[in-house]
Amino acid sequence: MHAGLRRALRPRSASCELLDLASNDYLGLARHPLVTRAAAQAAHRWGAGATGSRLVTGSIELHATLEAELAAFCGFEAALVLSSGYAANLAAVTALTGPGALVVSDAGNHASLIDGCRLSRARKAVVAHADPAAVDAALSAHGGRALTITDAVFSVDGDAAPLPALAAACRRHGAGLLVDDAHGLGVLGDGGRGAVAAAGLAGAPDTVATVTLSKSLGSQGGAVLGPARVIEHLVNTARTFIFDTGLAPAAAGGALGALRLLRREPERAARTGEAAAALYHRLTAAGLAAVRPDAAVVAVRAPSPDAAVRWAADCRAAGLLVGCFRPPSVPDGVSRLRLTARADLTDAHLHTAVRILTATAPRG
Amino acid sequence: MHAGLRRALRPRSASCELLDLASNDYLGLARHPLVTRAAAQAAHRWGAGATGSRLVTGSIELHATLEAELAAFCGFEAALVLSSGYAANLAAVTALTGPGALVVSDAGNHASLIDGCRLSRARKAVVAHADPAAVDAALSAHGGRALTITDAVFSVDGDAAPLPALAAACRRHGAGLLVDDAHGLGVLGDGGRGAVAAAGLAGAPDTVATVTLSKSLGSQGGAVLGPARVIEHLVNTARTFIFDTGLAPAAAGGALGALRLLRREPERAARTGEAAAALYHRLTAAGLAAVRPDAAVVAVRAPSPDAAVRWAADCRAAGLLVGCFRPPSVPDGVSRLRLTARADLTDAHLHTAVRILTATAPRG
Ligand SMILES: Cc1ncc(COP(=O)(O)O)c(C=O)c1O
Ligand SMILES: Cc1ncc(COP(=O)(O)O)c(C=O)c1O
Repeated sequence: MHAGLRRALRPRSASCELLDLASNDYLGLARHPLVTRAAAQAAHRWGAGATGSRLVTGSIELHATLEAELAAFCGFEAALVLSSGYAANLAAVTALTGPGALVVSDAGNHASLIDGCRLSRARKAVVAHADPAAVDAALSAHGGRALTITDAVFSVDGDAAPLPALAAACRRHGAGLLVDDAHGLGVLGDGGRGAVAAAGLAGAPDTVATVTLSKSLGSQGGAVLGPARVIEHLVNTARTFIFDTGLAPAAAGGALGALRLLRREPERAARTGEAAAALYHRLTAAGLAAVRPDAAVVAVRAPSPDAAVRWAADCRAAGLLVGCFRPPSVPDGVSRLRLTARADLTDAHLHTAVRILTATAPRG
Repeated sequence: MHAGLRRALRPRSASCELLDLASNDYLGLARHPLVTRAAAQAAHRWGAGATGSRLVTGSIELHATLEAELAAFCGFEAALVLSSGYAANLAAVTALTGPGALVVSDAGNHASLIDGCRLSRARKAVVAHADPAAVDAALSAHGGRALTITDAVFSVDGDAAPLPALAAACRRHGAGLLVDDAHGLGVLGDGGRGAVAAAGLAGAPDTVATVTLSKSLGSQGGAVLGPARVIEHLVNTARTFIFDTGLAPAAAGGALGALRLLRREPERAARTGEAAAALYHRLTAAGLAAVRPDAAVVAVRAPSPDAAVRWAADCRAAGLLVGCFRPPSVPDGVSRLRLTARADLTDAHLHTAVRILTATAPRG
């Protein structure tokens, strides 16, 4: 691999002073005192770890409370919490499909959904990005049991999936729909209930959603949301649930604390979207090739992988932390900076960010 | 599925009074005040979550410290911390193999190693349990790039893999060896340095180990241990590392606290093994079909899945929590109770446990 393209880890210090436009902490809750206190209290009360599989000693009442409140908030009958969003996607895809089934997967889907397909041994049809007609055609060509899977908000470009049209295509063919709402929860929908709720699909018998606890909820973990019978099926079959230690109490406690804060302060969700829109407009006005955001992620195209790496490094040197996505981590081979808006960004933050991004932009 | 074989979640309360012979908290550290305090302090200092991929904003200095101390303790050059032991195994298997390579996998390996094989798209040879000659034969038949993967201590029966003979077979054929030391760390080896260290394989250029932070270290997370060039390769290629949020600070802090405690009190490791041996001897003396333990896990055979489920329920009613492993979660189809010893079990605990297990045993 080209030396400039190798990844290196750069641990943050606790007092890191960079302006953060790279994290997925969309609501600014990861370091909110109520959330860190809820995490710390859970560690004291329940221990540092869950001590076993959720099926043996690893289920605590805190998991059950979090599951009930998450399901109710997002509009689903039931929820199942796993140790990461990645594990939740592996669990959902493998449990809802299997040999003989067809999985129809958007070309821009997250790695964890793709790995879920690989583990499922189902037949797989990768369809064009955000294209309900392509999904319809793939389902038509099949006939048997089928599941369509899609990110609600795509993690790289921040664009939203056309959920109502995808759901309609699935229903025409009796197929299930699995939506990964990792980047929708906390940002989209009424009070941050997510993209699935916003599309009126939450609680539908043929719709399952996954979420992460590691982005808007500022913690770690993931969950599958769906009808109770689907959740019961996962408990009995999903390998990343059965053979994995339960989510650590502190992570469950932190996520629950963040969820309760969001319920009390629903305006945080809208503020995140507004900050993203403002960022996009200012970047575009400054002549940068930004993608119109549907949620919190604002992608800015870079001319080459090297230019993207240099641009991100120059931003960092100037005090701004941005994400840098480049091959092979991007499905389309396009390099970009990935900026994220947060509910707690001020006008001054946005001004600084745009100034630095413009000053360091590669000359085209 | 037969109704009696369906799994149901039974969340623990924080004041659960059952005698626990089911958790993987082998050193009794998950609720140790120094460990829960370290977890809580990390949440306060670093936040409830890591906020992003380890490659973007999700690496904190606490991860780097934990990686350095884990690697040094276990005798490896470098370590990489992931969000779970499951994710660590998926990362290690996929990064060390790939299409064209052969993976030789013990028939008793953990689900996460098996899923790693499925994701790797490598050719897979499943060989007889704990059988170095079978590994040798599989490697002979191949010729190209190959990796042998094995649990160090098998999670169901608690028996140890013949690591020196496996390593010799691998070396004869120039193959790599990946050992999952999930149940060895903290229990086996000098001061709990694990089965790989005990076998003299730690730090070897052709040996990689994975560990979990969720068992002896009482927390959550996993790590890959190996030569620095292997760890660097994982940073650049392993999907469950790149596309997953970094381990939550509280989990990293809790695991680091437990590791430091184990270094100061190395006798905890030996005590766990002694408790397991005592449990085995008393169960055998009472006429139960226990498997001689090589580490902390003591398996007791049950005549049928139904009998195992009933036995575990009767133990629970009498105040004893035991694991119940039955098809399809056991590779060999044999149902058993799975008991675990812990460093903090007293003689009175063992006495009570054996009394309840004997009184409730299925009549043969
Ligand atoms: C769309 C999407 N799904 C799933 C995940 C995985 O979630 P987690 O990091 O909580 O494992 C991520 C990112 O990490 C993501 O962007
Ligand atoms: C042998 C083995 N490897 C890996 C794992 C997965 O580790 P974790 O639970 O930390 O994800 C487990 C159990 O959970 C295990 O028993």
